[in-house]
Amino acid sequence: MKNVGVVGAAGYAGIQAVAILANHPEFNLVTIASDSNEGTALEELYPAFTQTEAGKMKFATTDEVLAADLDAVFLAVPHKASLSITPKFVEKGVRVIDLSADFRLEDPQVYEKWYGVPHTELELLKNRDFGLPELFPEDMARAHQKQEAGEDVVVACAGCYVTASSLAAKPFVSSDWFDDCMPPVIDAISGLTGAGKKAAAKTMYVNVAQNYSVYGVASHRHTPEIEQILGTNVVFTPHLAPANRGILSTVTMKLKGDVQLSAEELHERYAKFYEGSEFVKVLPLGQFPQTSNVAGTNFAHIGVAVNEERGVVIAVAAIDNLVKGAAGQAVQCANLVFGFAENAGLDKVALPV
Amino acid sequence: MKNVGVVGAAGYAGIQAVAILANHPEFNLVTIASDSNEGTALEELYPAFTQTEAGKMKFATTDEVLAADLDAVFLAVPHKASLSITPKFVEKGVRVIDLSADFRLEDPQVYEKWYGVPHTELELLKNRDFGLPELFPEDMARAHQKQEAGEDVVVACAGCYVTASSLAAKPFVSSDWFDDCMPPVIDAISGLTGAGKKAAAKTMYVNVAQNYSVYGVASHRHTPEIEQILGTNVVFTPHLAPANRGILSTVTMKLKGDVQLSAEELHERYAKFYEGSEFVKVLPLGQFPQTSNVAGTNFAHIGVAVNEERGVVIAVAAIDNLVKGAAGQAVQCANLVFGFAENAGLDKVALPV
Amino acid sequence: MKNVGVVGAAGYAGIQAVAILANHPEFNLVTIASDSNEGTALEELYPAFTQTEAGKMKFATTDEVLAADLDAVFLAVPHKASLSITPKFVEKGVRVIDLSADFRLEDPQVYEKWYGVPHTELELLKNRDFGLPELFPEDMARAHQKQEAGEDVVVACAGCYVTASSLAAKPFVSSDWFDDCMPPVIDAISGLTGAGKKAAAKTMYVNVAQNYSVYGVASHRHTPEIEQILGTNVVFTPHLAPANRGILSTVTMKLKGDVQLSAEELHERYAKFYEGSEFVKVLPLGQFPQTSNVAGTNFAHIGVAVNEERGVVIAVAAIDNLVKGAAGQAVQCANLVFGFAENAGLDKVALPV
Amino acid sequence: MKNVGVVGAAGYAGIQAVAILANHPEFNLVTIASDSNEGTALEELYPAFTQTEAGKMKFATTDEVLAADLDAVFLAVPHKASLSITPKFVEKGVRVIDLSADFRLEDPQVYEKWYGVPHTELELLKNRDFGLPELFPEDMARAHQKQEAGEDVVVACAGCYVTASSLAAKPFVSSDWFDDCMPPVIDAISGLTGAGKKAAAKTMYVNVAQNYSVYGVASHRHTPEIEQILGTNVVFTPHLAPANRGILSTVTMKLKGDVQLSAEELHERYAKFYEGSEFVKVLPLGQFPQTSNVAGTNFAHIGVAVNEERGVVIAVAAIDNLVKGAAGQAVQCANLVFGFAENAGLDKVALPV
Repeated sequence: MKNVGVVGAAGYAGIQAVAILANHPEFNLVTIASDSNEGTALEELYPAFTQTEAGKMKFATTDEVLAADLDAVFLAVPHKASLSITPKFVEKGVRVIDLSADFRLEDPQVYEKWYGVPHTELELLKNRDFGLPELFPEDMARAHQKQEAGEDVVVACAGCYVTASSLAAKPFVSSDWFDDCMPPVIDAISGLTGAGKKAAAKTMYVNVAQNYSVYGVASHRHTPEIEQILGTNVVFTPHLAPANRGILSTVTMKLKGDVQLSAEELHERYAKFYEGSEFVKVLPLGQFPQTSNVAGTNFAHIGVAVNEERGVVIAVAAIDNLVKGAAGQAVQCANLVFGFAENAGLDKVALPV
Repeated sequence: MKNVGVVGAAGYAGIQAVAILANHPEFNLVTIASDSNEGTALEELYPAFTQTEAGKMKFATTDEVLAADLDAVFLAVPHKASLSITPKFVEKGVRVIDLSADFRLEDPQVYEKWYGVPHTELELLKNRDFGLPELFPEDMARAHQKQEAGEDVVVACAGCYVTASSLAAKPFVSSDWFDDCMPPVIDAISGLTGAGKKAAAKTMYVNVAQNYSVYGVASHRHTPEIEQILGTNVVFTPHLAPANRGILSTVTMKLKGDVQLSAEELHERYAKFYEGSEFVKVLPLGQFPQTSNVAGTNFAHIGVAVNEERGVVIAVAAIDNLVKGAAGQAVQCANLVFGFAENAGLDKVALPV
Repeated sequence: MKNVGVVGAAGYAGIQAVAILANHPEFNLVTIASDSNEGTALEELYPAFTQTEAGKMKFATTDEVLAADLDAVFLAVPHKASLSITPKFVEKGVRVIDLSADFRLEDPQVYEKWYGVPHTELELLKNRDFGLPELFPEDMARAHQKQEAGEDVVVACAGCYVTASSLAAKPFVSSDWFDDCMPPVIDAISGLTGAGKKAAAKTMYVNVAQNYSVYGVASHRHTPEIEQILGTNVVFTPHLAPANRGILSTVTMKLKGDVQLSAEELHERYAKFYEGSEFVKVLPLGQFPQTSNVAGTNFAHIGVAVNEERGVVIAVAAIDNLVKGAAGQAVQCANLVFGFAENAGLDKVALPV
Repeated sequence: MKNVGVVGAAGYAGIQAVAILANHPEFNLVTIASDSNEGTALEELYPAFTQTEAGKMKFATTDEVLAADLDAVFLAVPHKASLSITPKFVEKGVRVIDLSADFRLEDPQVYEKWYGVPHTELELLKNRDFGLPELFPEDMARAHQKQEAGEDVVVACAGCYVTASSLAAKPFVSSDWFDDCMPPVIDAISGLTGAGKKAAAKTMYVNVAQNYSVYGVASHRHTPEIEQILGTNVVFTPHLAPANRGILSTVTMKLKGDVQLSAEELHERYAKFYEGSEFVKVLPLGQFPQTSNVAGTNFAHIGVAVNEERGVVIAVAAIDNLVKGAAGQAVQCANLVFGFAENAGLDKVALPV
């Protein structure tokens, strides 16, 4: 058993990490931090944990977590906060699994452009590994080697929109069929946990129920992350619709003019691309994903189609933004870093209804 | 007062037409038909009408409506049914406002391809006028002249996805800025009334709540209707998310390579395009539509943005699928056919919360 | 046309009053106040009003409304605020339709107990009329006489839980069949607009969706209002379930031991009790109310049953908390005060789906 | 490992049983039956299981399950069906855990009254044990002894409304404080999975969303089951509100006239009553249950209050109708029958948001 802690444990991604780690066969969750909830028992803030063992844990401060004897820490802190916290854990020899955006973008200039502050940890940034195991298996292999060798480990986990969109697009964009004359158009729908825990008019039930909306049009900061992964420009437009969890990402991509591509061929490429994957499941041809089928799980479901007449391919992915899009992915990465089974603690199927 | 009837009055579009016409200052709703509910009182089927005047109306048969002395009839019948019913009303001198798809497509071959039956009313089809008044004002003018001259009138009203998508796309697609090298990508989200009144697994609460899905990928039959209106190819992908009413249509369109277009210029074009429109409202720059703001009304809200770096324009429209996307649009058309105020009976604002 | 204003117009009850009054045939809405939104246009805060006439109105201050030349004012202010505002309007000769709780309780001691401050307007309290026209028609008649005679008018409108529960209980509780050995048990379910406009953890979508809860158990301050109306003790427990609007109030009442009461007799009493009522509709025997059938309207639907074996009667009422439970009831009262048709501006039926 | 099967595995309770048993440490799920889905793979019907091990299982027929070599069978079949299936499994020496109502009511006359058919298995009925372990621990002990001795075992599991209502009421009703002059009034709210898997108008999204309703008023067939457990008459009224899962049961009970009971004393009794219980959690005084905190789990949360002035006690319980109200309870019972840890396979906490 490896000892782990969660910083930012009272937020939505943090508490999801706590829920997974509290039942993990290989990790021993020894401390959880939320500076603004210091001393409060977990079950007070989240009554789902009432009178359970995990529920009795009390929120510590970040400093207390720093002082603990940990093998790894999960940082579910706001963007920018990780920039100052990560080096402190690294210095103590603790492996960092970062759920924030601070170490995702390779180019510090791009980071500064979208997050408004200069990146101050260039060395760590250069050496970090990217946490989206299905697309960056070599990063996970490298992180595992570092862990074995006792070197510093910082894993920058991909976020929710980025994970869903990249998993849907990558097999096609990386093929010879893809024509980059048109940027892939990504329209994604998110649930409300994606908007965070802060109470605001836009997250109130009465303003969300029975309502669809769009935001960040033409300038969402996850765009450069997707582009970094896909190696091509994209147009990304996020939407909001009433649900707690879930991302549905629909990606429309251009076929090269002279290519004749059948749905079967496209489907076969996707199936091969994710063959043997523990979590990414390519649905049978003709079937498309629904977010409720992956809610509460680390699965990604993908469906694809070809529109021959219009010369485009459409790929759709569904994930749970808090699991495969955040805490589950982080645990998956940690499993790989430490050499555990990739799905340790993550073997749950969605509630069937 | 003009005497009108509704055929298919028990379905979702039909009952919405009944609700509007029962309070219309210029139309006198004298008969409603639903062959499968013959003899049932409206209030029994829809208890919202309990002990109201309209609620006491009983569903007649289509034949009884044909025998009634009407100035106009609203056909809210399934696709294909209108093909046989419309000529009967026309023959009797009744103006037909058709909510079905049967007279929308100008090309009977295209109709046959998507609906699986040959179009048998070519003469009526040739002379029909298209019911999307903001984009086809000349059709409404022509229909009004026919009505004044006592000639046959058949108005083929645009449907819900088509209305939202076309209103969003038309001002840009019809400009010099638009580059048709890339087909506009339309990702639209619909509520459950769009799936009709028939009980089925896919429309059950437990399968819809907290769930997003996609359907008709790469082959939805409203695609040719949108293309006919816009005069360009499109890629249209419909989605389902949990709400009773509402369409949110997000359209991504390519800017010509050499065009420098500011958000202000784009917004100005849209504002001018719909200047003075009773129902289509271009939101202030930076603001985007939400379906709840138009629910229960005949309004369309539109927001636009330019993504200069990626060379695209994004336009988003929200409507209520049963009102501006069906019964409201039909009444708006009928108002224009008879020379009434365009918003007669349609002056309602959405519930503020 | 009588000139009216709304104070507290930006809250949920206030904006509903604005929506009704903006389309009222007899009242001319000349000013709306929200001190915290002074100068903001209505359409900015509530985009449902985008580019409509009402939407262009700007929120004034309460003082500006006081300075306006009004026939009547609707006070949709928080409890306690009305205590200081009402006398100012009365002094100016403006009829006050108060949606707050400040003048509902006849006994100032009871008011102080539940609201924590002494009642300072005893004279106004003594002379106020109670605004629940179906149960207190004589209050409305008296208020009308005062209005005609140019005397002060203060109408204290019944609130949402109280209206639904009292309408359901009164016909039985006021009969000879009722046994007060057991207090009527009222379990009511409310939607989220009932929780007000302030963003808080408990009103966030993610904490409300797919969730039922209970609050104010054994000590809700609307209990004494219900008891004042019914003239008997009750046990009232409010619940919260996911919807924007609606109260469903289920009242279980004891039959006297020796009474044999058939469902038909009970139903007949209810039907007679509300015979001719514009808004309270007793459903056919065997049918029970649903909140969606009255959403957005001033209707109350009531269903009743007898449980002979257990010696109880069950009456269930559904209303829209913001309309019949707040703004609609206030307008209904104002209609009666000024001698207009009781349903002027309130003739709307719920969206059928 | 004990070999088990599920009959009625395609229904909501059945599929929940499958989901639990597929990950159970002591039970080996070897066969699942759904006569109407014979030969279909589980993942086809419930895509949440896509490409998982359980997902590949195919639905067998009931006869095939009968022919299998099982230690126990879970019957998630409709009421009345169990009556004919149970004896067949018993005859084969298979322990039956019955989720239907057929063996719940001790009195066969009462069964016939509410279910419309005579009870034909009187011997089995007399010897069955009742499956609500927190209230009938002796039944579970007896069933365990039978299992050890190789005797027939039939466990009639308590249903959802009955479990929630009885757990809330029992500690008070069984105390000296309870006055049965007034029957406990039980108003319960259920989600839509409680209405079953059959598509019907009443379970369609558009008829359920944003809507509260009531049904079975004055005559719901779960009433006699609750009365049998509590040993006193009750008035039970079920409600429907929009959610997939969850029962919230609010029970109002009369205090004896001369009893002075503090909230602390009441709370202490409840806490003691369920002390050490694996699944029933009495919340801290002042806190009340919410269904989302137990969704997907076998927990029951209970909150209590005293209304001294009105002489009543209010107890509220929340459960997940498909887990503690059906499949989870059945597995809990099976665990006890076979001598496993009571929470084997049931150690899951609800999704925190």
